[in-house]
Amino acid sequence: MIKDNKPHIHEGIFSSYADSRIVVFGIPYDGTASYRPGTRFGPQSIRQELGGIETYSPYQDMNLANHRISDMGDMPLHFGNIAAVLEEMKRETAEFLKDGKKTVVLGGEHLISLPVIDAYIEAYPGLSVVHLDAHADLRDEYLGEKLSHATVMRRVFEKLEGEMWQFGIRSGAKDEFAFADANTRMTKFDLSGIDAVRDTAGDSPIYLSIDIDVLDPSILPGTGTPEAGGITFKELISGLLTLKGLNIVGADIVELSPHYDQSGVSTSVACKVLREVLLLLA
Amino acid sequence: MIKDNKPHIHEGIFSSYADSRIVVFGIPYDGTASYRPGTRFGPQSIRQELGGIETYSPYQDMNLANHRISDMGDMPLHFGNIAAVLEEMKRETAEFLKDGKKTVVLGGEHLISLPVIDAYIEAYPGLSVVHLDAHADLRDEYLGEKLSHATVMRRVFEKLEGEMWQFGIRSGAKDEFAFADANTRMTKFDLSGIDAVRDTAGDSPIYLSIDIDVLDPSILPGTGTPEAGGITFKELISGLLTLKGLNIVGADIVELSPHYDQSGVSTSVACKVLREVLLLLA
Amino acid sequence: MIKDNKPHIHEGIFSSYADSRIVVFGIPYDGTASYRPGTRFGPQSIRQELGGIETYSPYQDMNLANHRISDMGDMPLHFGNIAAVLEEMKRETAEFLKDGKKTVVLGGEHLISLPVIDAYIEAYPGLSVVHLDAHADLRDEYLGEKLSHATVMRRVFEKLEGEMWQFGIRSGAKDEFAFADANTRMTKFDLSGIDAVRDTAGDSPIYLSIDIDVLDPSILPGTGTPEAGGITFKELISGLLTLKGLNIVGADIVELSPHYDQSGVSTSVACKVLREVLLLLA
Amino acid sequence: MIKDNKPHIHEGIFSSYADSRIVVFGIPYDGTASYRPGTRFGPQSIRQELGGIETYSPYQDMNLANHRISDMGDMPLHFGNIAAVLEEMKRETAEFLKDGKKTVVLGGEHLISLPVIDAYIEAYPGLSVVHLDAHADLRDEYLGEKLSHATVMRRVFEKLEGEMWQFGIRSGAKDEFAFADANTRMTKFDLSGIDAVRDTAGDSPIYLSIDIDVLDPSILPGTGTPEAGGITFKELISGLLTLKGLNIVGADIVELSPHYDQSGVSTSVACKVLREVLLLLA
Amino acid sequence: MIKDNKPHIHEGIFSSYADSRIVVFGIPYDGTASYRPGTRFGPQSIRQELGGIETYSPYQDMNLANHRISDMGDMPLHFGNIAAVLEEMKRETAEFLKDGKKTVVLGGEHLISLPVIDAYIEAYPGLSVVHLDAHADLRDEYLGEKLSHATVMRRVFEKLEGEMWQFGIRSGAKDEFAFADANTRMTKFDLSGIDAVRDTAGDSPIYLSIDIDVLDPSILPGTGTPEAGGITFKELISGLLTLKGLNIVGADIVELSPHYDQSGVSTSVACKVLREVLLLLA
Amino acid sequence: MIKDNKPHIHEGIFSSYADSRIVVFGIPYDGTASYRPGTRFGPQSIRQELGGIETYSPYQDMNLANHRISDMGDMPLHFGNIAAVLEEMKRETAEFLKDGKKTVVLGGEHLISLPVIDAYIEAYPGLSVVHLDAHADLRDEYLGEKLSHATVMRRVFEKLEGEMWQFGIRSGAKDEFAFADANTRMTKFDLSGIDAVRDTAGDSPIYLSIDIDVLDPSILPGTGTPEAGGITFKELISGLLTLKGLNIVGADIVELSPHYDQSGVSTSVACKVLREVLLLLA
Repeated sequence: MIKDNKPHIHEGIFSSYADSRIVVFGIPYDGTASYRPGTRFGPQSIRQELGGIETYSPYQDMNLANHRISDMGDMPLHFGNIAAVLEEMKRETAEFLKDGKKTVVLGGEHLISLPVIDAYIEAYPGLSVVHLDAHADLRDEYLGEKLSHATVMRRVFEKLEGEMWQFGIRSGAKDEFAFADANTRMTKFDLSGIDAVRDTAGDSPIYLSIDIDVLDPSILPGTGTPEAGGITFKELISGLLTLKGLNIVGADIVELSPHYDQSGVSTSVACKVLREVLLLLA
Repeated sequence: MIKDNKPHIHEGIFSSYADSRIVVFGIPYDGTASYRPGTRFGPQSIRQELGGIETYSPYQDMNLANHRISDMGDMPLHFGNIAAVLEEMKRETAEFLKDGKKTVVLGGEHLISLPVIDAYIEAYPGLSVVHLDAHADLRDEYLGEKLSHATVMRRVFEKLEGEMWQFGIRSGAKDEFAFADANTRMTKFDLSGIDAVRDTAGDSPIYLSIDIDVLDPSILPGTGTPEAGGITFKELISGLLTLKGLNIVGADIVELSPHYDQSGVSTSVACKVLREVLLLLA
Repeated sequence: MIKDNKPHIHEGIFSSYADSRIVVFGIPYDGTASYRPGTRFGPQSIRQELGGIETYSPYQDMNLANHRISDMGDMPLHFGNIAAVLEEMKRETAEFLKDGKKTVVLGGEHLISLPVIDAYIEAYPGLSVVHLDAHADLRDEYLGEKLSHATVMRRVFEKLEGEMWQFGIRSGAKDEFAFADANTRMTKFDLSGIDAVRDTAGDSPIYLSIDIDVLDPSILPGTGTPEAGGITFKELISGLLTLKGLNIVGADIVELSPHYDQSGVSTSVACKVLREVLLLLA
Repeated sequence: MIKDNKPHIHEGIFSSYADSRIVVFGIPYDGTASYRPGTRFGPQSIRQELGGIETYSPYQDMNLANHRISDMGDMPLHFGNIAAVLEEMKRETAEFLKDGKKTVVLGGEHLISLPVIDAYIEAYPGLSVVHLDAHADLRDEYLGEKLSHATVMRRVFEKLEGEMWQFGIRSGAKDEFAFADANTRMTKFDLSGIDAVRDTAGDSPIYLSIDIDVLDPSILPGTGTPEAGGITFKELISGLLTLKGLNIVGADIVELSPHYDQSGVSTSVACKVLREVLLLLA
Repeated sequence: MIKDNKPHIHEGIFSSYADSRIVVFGIPYDGTASYRPGTRFGPQSIRQELGGIETYSPYQDMNLANHRISDMGDMPLHFGNIAAVLEEMKRETAEFLKDGKKTVVLGGEHLISLPVIDAYIEAYPGLSVVHLDAHADLRDEYLGEKLSHATVMRRVFEKLEGEMWQFGIRSGAKDEFAFADANTRMTKFDLSGIDAVRDTAGDSPIYLSIDIDVLDPSILPGTGTPEAGGITFKELISGLLTLKGLNIVGADIVELSPHYDQSGVSTSVACKVLREVLLLLA
Repeated sequence: MIKDNKPHIHEGIFSSYADSRIVVFGIPYDGTASYRPGTRFGPQSIRQELGGIETYSPYQDMNLANHRISDMGDMPLHFGNIAAVLEEMKRETAEFLKDGKKTVVLGGEHLISLPVIDAYIEAYPGLSVVHLDAHADLRDEYLGEKLSHATVMRRVFEKLEGEMWQFGIRSGAKDEFAFADANTRMTKFDLSGIDAVRDTAGDSPIYLSIDIDVLDPSILPGTGTPEAGGITFKELISGLLTLKGLNIVGADIVELSPHYDQSGVSTSVACKVLREVLLLLA
């Protein structure tokens, strides 16, 4: 269990596991990436930059250093049987939930959200999911596989009792959009309507899944499948702040592929998204 | 004649030449690039990425796969005498027009639009041109040459009977802007006023020339002469959709220089512009 | 004294020193960079690109070539004792001011603004500073140093009689923002309220310090500490034009670190900012 | 079956399938890459460059254009169950062998050599393998998997009746070297002793497996696990020429990961290795 | 005439034109580049780095600073008619020769050597050429052109009375090698036999043309057509020193394409080759 | 004191401080870099890669995992007064020596060797230094500074009682070579004569200072001042093995500047040099 690791030490993220209320951990898995792989380097890259960012957020007027957060490192992963690997991710997540922690998972590709949310669904009946992404991820299967970064939200939907909210979606097959029309609450292209989440959620549990490619590739080129026409960083932060005060019980930030952006900006942006998400959950 | 080639096969772009209504072809010419060359790699780079994008457009709710499009590959080019090379480009284009095709040309530098439009002017009397670009391209000559990427729209203007609309222009010599004031319908900096095209064009034939550097270099760094202060991808798509339903008989997308953007985002953006332009003409 | 150099020759920037009213010079210093160094390459990189940009600005309808500007090259710098190095920068600046020139300094890291502004304060009693930046730069000390890129505006403030205006700030420690609340006129995140400068400044002297990272890293990745959530190029130009007609006596453009942006866009953007700033002062 | 594809056309490689004696095809698989993935882009990258190289080899005084070679494109691949994917690779290879072709396979990671050689072993009893690599690839398992790029030559060895020759090996666990001492004919660090292959092979069938990282990373940085201390291109060519005239019935060139070398040199080198290997088999 | 320019000032290269015995100038022309263009940036890139290298050569125990060298900058170039452009290059070179200077020209593509050598042939009857290159450059025509980087040495040969020595050649069509066998003195692959030049030249005039791609692409990736299997820097220097004391009357260093090597090593290598060549001529 | 840190954990480098015989630590200082800075990222970059390399060396038939080594992390550094910073480096080193450890320091620029060797000289009277480098580093002062990466070996020499051996030197001012002739035992260009160290050293204490730019920039482009004409990795390893069995009491590996090599090869090479050096000292 990675909960038995020694936590990583960053300025601002330094609780012991026992003391922490929020646990950050990485799942550096990119086994089903159909196009450009490399999200396996996401968590490592975020950790390396994290020391260089301000722990104080002028957006939320809060400081990471004042909250009990620990970073438990990365799950060790074996390539090979996908289903078994996903099962392990679920088990690790469930352990954290059993100990009363909120988790913020760093991907890896989006498929990792499936087992993590699976564990949350068992722990939080009635869970809703807020999904920010460029891609619908609602295919029933992709390249012959049921378990894929391109099917992940379809699989999540099949298990979900609460709502599935989707924002920023600007790429998918026609039948994914048709599925969304019939089944999920999707906003295409941007985050408009995100206040409806706030207005209807009450204190029911919410899981927040951020595929970082919801951002425009101008600000985040370092991702496997960049999609022009995305939202700005300001729009993302402003959308997240709309959710402030809701009962967000867990989150993930996935699909950072740092090697495709040699300026380092993509990782730096992901670090700031992580800071704001942590403060949102704190 | 490249019309005698076997067409390239892409998901969504796969008609035989005979069946196709729209023909894509490349003119990988960058012989007059005065600053950073490399647009010769544009068509090849677009083709390589095209397989990776969705054929369905959520912007137009249309799918490339439902329209009769073929990709006839690139014109073979000889360096050397510019005038002779341009003549060949005109001849190739005219062949397609004679067969009743619409063409969408992939550059190469902007000068290639001159012979292509020339062929269109002969086939479509009264043709108007809609020109999206960061640069006015209205010099009378440039570095002593009459035929240059920097003079191309001046040369086109000299042959044009219809209107020349220009949008997004944010760079040029003072006398280019003065020429535009007197002769063309130019909107500086953005696409505002593009609805005037729609409102006045009726069903007269329109050629659409997109210098991809009309986009801001944040989203398209891979171009020879990046100009800050450009339009966003959303603004471009929205501008193009304003033209929906007009009698657009041909188009080009020029000045992608992929080697200057190692993240691959520029090419990916160009592919999506191509998808939307093809659906606009379909 | 670098004023004794032969000026560099660029298209549009070509006065002799004696004839010039505005003097451009570089201070390629990055000795206190705590994160990614490399701003030492900023001035050289700007000079190399400057020949490639239009001297005519469609934003201001003015042409560099019509104004008396010289580029006197870079200050030679010794590493080692920071205080002595800063003293030299002040002395060089004071020489130019004594000769009645306005200076536009190319950094280098932001700390170089301290000695330059110091010389201006002595020459222009009552000077105000307009500071555009992603970072507050108001720490009292940083990593144990009083003289640092992170403390520069605190040090400037201590000497300033006029106002300190700050715009675009989106990163800093909580106490920097508290200091700003109490002492400076800071707008967080963007340039809103910049018209208040115009409305209150009258003809009192103003120094304009532009940390180029005030721009969003999507358009300017080539800087040491990129901060997402910045302003666009259009917002920057529009903000600068708000100041048109004020008594701006000097300016600097700092923190370009060109090696971190291999597309060359960052340098190209900095050149255009330089053009607009020069025309603003002309 | 990819043998039913239309062949790709390159200058020098242009036979129809029926006419060809040698078949090139790609297996863009990198599913077990434990470190930097990206060899999936190898075949595509080689094809894109192939048009740019001379078809005449001054090393062998032979011209690709004079030999009957076809390029049948890439195997479509599904991620997921490794064993099933490998089985498909074996089946595709066996089809070619049944038709009397020699194959030259472009990887992808080294694991793809296992099913390919497996097919060869069934078709050519007594087959020997000549393995050029930086890594021994002789682990019994790696990260818990029996089927991995790090175990591939161990698995091959288990099926092989003929000799396993290994050259250039400079990285591995101690027990891999011990295994080699006991079981294979390994030359560490370089190709010395490769004339022993020529001297003992007679006309028995030989399969040549070239992990391109046998080359020094100075000349081939674009690979997943670069190992300093490799051989030069001249040494590789000279080693290959030593094998001239032997009964080489198939070959592969694996582990090119082009995105890690933005100069394009790695791909260009791989193309020249491909040319020489094709001429060796011709 | 560029001889009327003010010379550039570098540490070690700083004579006035009148005082200089050796003149460096650039011809940033890449108009016939058939593959990757960009050698137009060669001279600029070399000048920018030149200040950073030692002026003392431990290979020749000589110092640039002790010899009368000036750098007259770059020829202004017009794109368009190739023959006219070449004529201008010849005229500029002839001017320098008339003034009794030796020239060292920085390319640009290899075609520029043709007009330069042409001027030399008229000034120095019986001139021999020593040509170091990866490519034979002996085609009679290339892509339909007689004047091309791929035909340059064939054109030179047609005008030459003295010997044409070629070294390091490892790429070309079969008939280029055949032409060399019949007409030039070519060493394939390396510089072996270069002492024959020294032994036979006496004091007859020699022109040295160095296509920098004679070096292995491991040390010089920044060139348009990299060819594996090249010589090392040590081999190049050692070959050049073999020519020490001969009557070398002029030289060029061509085909550096700096944008393809972001480490900067290629330019740094070219600077050192330039230093050694200058000292060889001094 | 960094000796009070918790050690970093790597496969193969995992002793507690108390148990360790060899201590690795980083000094990420590049404050006097006169050209391209960035060696401050060296230690971090090496640590990130170290997990990916084999702990077994086929060169020495030894395994890191069998020796007692700890990695104590990086010294925290303040910019500003150079002398004070160097004093701290000496103090940290002396602490390790007092505890009976051997240290292997990761730079940072070469100047850091001065205080480290200073501590060694006090602990090991009669210490000799073996210095591998492209640059002589023997200037008396550089850009007006006595303490600089370009003067470091001159300063070391002034304190040294034992021999100073220098190998691989291929760049320097003439008077540095003259100084070496008179005072040190320098081999220019390569490592020839390194067996003389072995033959004369007996069991006197030796400190090994490896400026990684002694390697040819083809294999190590990621350094501040690349110098063509360097040694190969094989020559370096072979030279180091010549010293096997001598009483090497400490070592450093400096001048890796990883951002200048985006392929990652430079860091990977440095890791392997580190492995071999650790095993040499073990």
